[in-house]
Amino acid sequence: MKAVILLSGGLDSTVCMAVAHSKGYELYPISFNYQQRHNREIECAKNVADYYAVDKHLVIETNLNDMGGSALTDSQIAVPAGDVRRTDIPATYVPARNLIFLSYALGLAEVVGAESIFIGVNALDYSGYPDCRPEFISAFQQLANYTTKAAVQNKSVITVETPLLYLTKKDIVLLGKKLSAPLAMTTSCYQGGDKACGVCDSCLLRLKGFEEAGFSDPIPYLTRSGS
Amino acid sequence: MKAVILLSGGLDSTVCMAVAHSKGYELYPISFNYQQRHNREIECAKNVADYYAVDKHLVIETNLNDMGGSALTDSQIAVPAGDVRRTDIPATYVPARNLIFLSYALGLAEVVGAESIFIGVNALDYSGYPDCRPEFISAFQQLANYTTKAAVQNKSVITVETPLLYLTKKDIVLLGKKLSAPLAMTTSCYQGGDKACGVCDSCLLRLKGFEEAGFSDPIPYLTRSGS
Repeated sequence: MKAVILLSGGLDSTVCMAVAHSKGYELYPISFNYQQRHNREIECAKNVADYYAVDKHLVIETNLNDMGGSALTDSQIAVPAGDVRRTDIPATYVPARNLIFLSYALGLAEVVGAESIFIGVNALDYSGYPDCRPEFISAFQQLANYTTKAAVQNKSVITVETPLLYLTKKDIVLLGKKLSAPLAMTTSCYQGGDKACGVCDSCLLRLKGFEEAGFSDPIPYLTRSGS
Repeated sequence: MKAVILLSGGLDSTVCMAVAHSKGYELYPISFNYQQRHNREIECAKNVADYYAVDKHLVIETNLNDMGGSALTDSQIAVPAGDVRRTDIPATYVPARNLIFLSYALGLAEVVGAESIFIGVNALDYSGYPDCRPEFISAFQQLANYTTKAAVQNKSVITVETPLLYLTKKDIVLLGKKLSAPLAMTTSCYQGGDKACGVCDSCLLRLKGFEEAGFSDPIPYLTRSGS
């Protein structure tokens, strides 16, 4: 029983790894160096993959930054200060990113013969990106049912698993703790510095999650003003 | 009016460029260097993009070969001799390739504000790949309707256009000729040599198309046994 895990090196994807591991899957993590501002997360992903002693960790290299259009891949666009009550879609949105990531994951799942893909999307404590929503995941599942060789031959379909979809950040931290996920190895900050900035959306959500769960976030921050 | 064109540098995608051009779209071609055996096609794509004097041609670099599983990206797997009557899916199938390509194209369409994506998939004279089928394209369109920022805000959706879907290779050649597409700049061979091999699936389909259309294929071949 094999699973491909979209592993960014952040809190959510690491808890996803832990969930898949706890269910007994052989883990095939896939990570992306897309020239993101915070590509420090790739080192975190490698550490998490090592922690789970996986056979192979596929790191896809791609110049997604050449597409432009996002503060995460274009150094000319600033990362906005966090605002977890914001209702618009922030500048950190990378067009089609989760779609691109899931597409590679589906290809890898077909190559290694995995039956599941785990992705740590979350529809509660998130930044409002279109491709984190349940409707998006359902539509991707429908598409996956038409994409692979096995699907064409009516043999099997690859299932997209979203164990964190309806969890709060607090619950994600608690789940990670319960499953002994290596949370100290993760990073979530969009700025990608040695220390997390503590003020971007991603830091704010993470700090709030740890605080509500009653734990201190084990990673270093420049400021913990959000907590 | 803008369109993103998936431009491989082959016959079909070049005729797609010509179709979009004839409809008056501003063209945004996107090509992929995925370490394919036949990455000579990228030079062809660049020439075709120059022919149409596009403002920007996005070439995505990615190590899709590290995923393995295909004769087109793994030098250890041989490209099979062509057999256009084959009913199984050949070793040249690259898992999820069109899905990955369309995903990037959707991202680019969102960034540049394009309303359409043109892809030269064909359901008649093709190699049986799952992700060339009409069902796959329909499912991708459904997914696209949930993916972009504009779609979330119910403002607009990006449409996937498949002008070649139900054309024979003969009709594709005739259409290319009618639209003055630069067919001599294209390559279709899976082997990627200076001269087309003339025996792989892709060469056989192409040679048959030119022959039935009553034209000589202008590119050099090692052998034209298929014609």
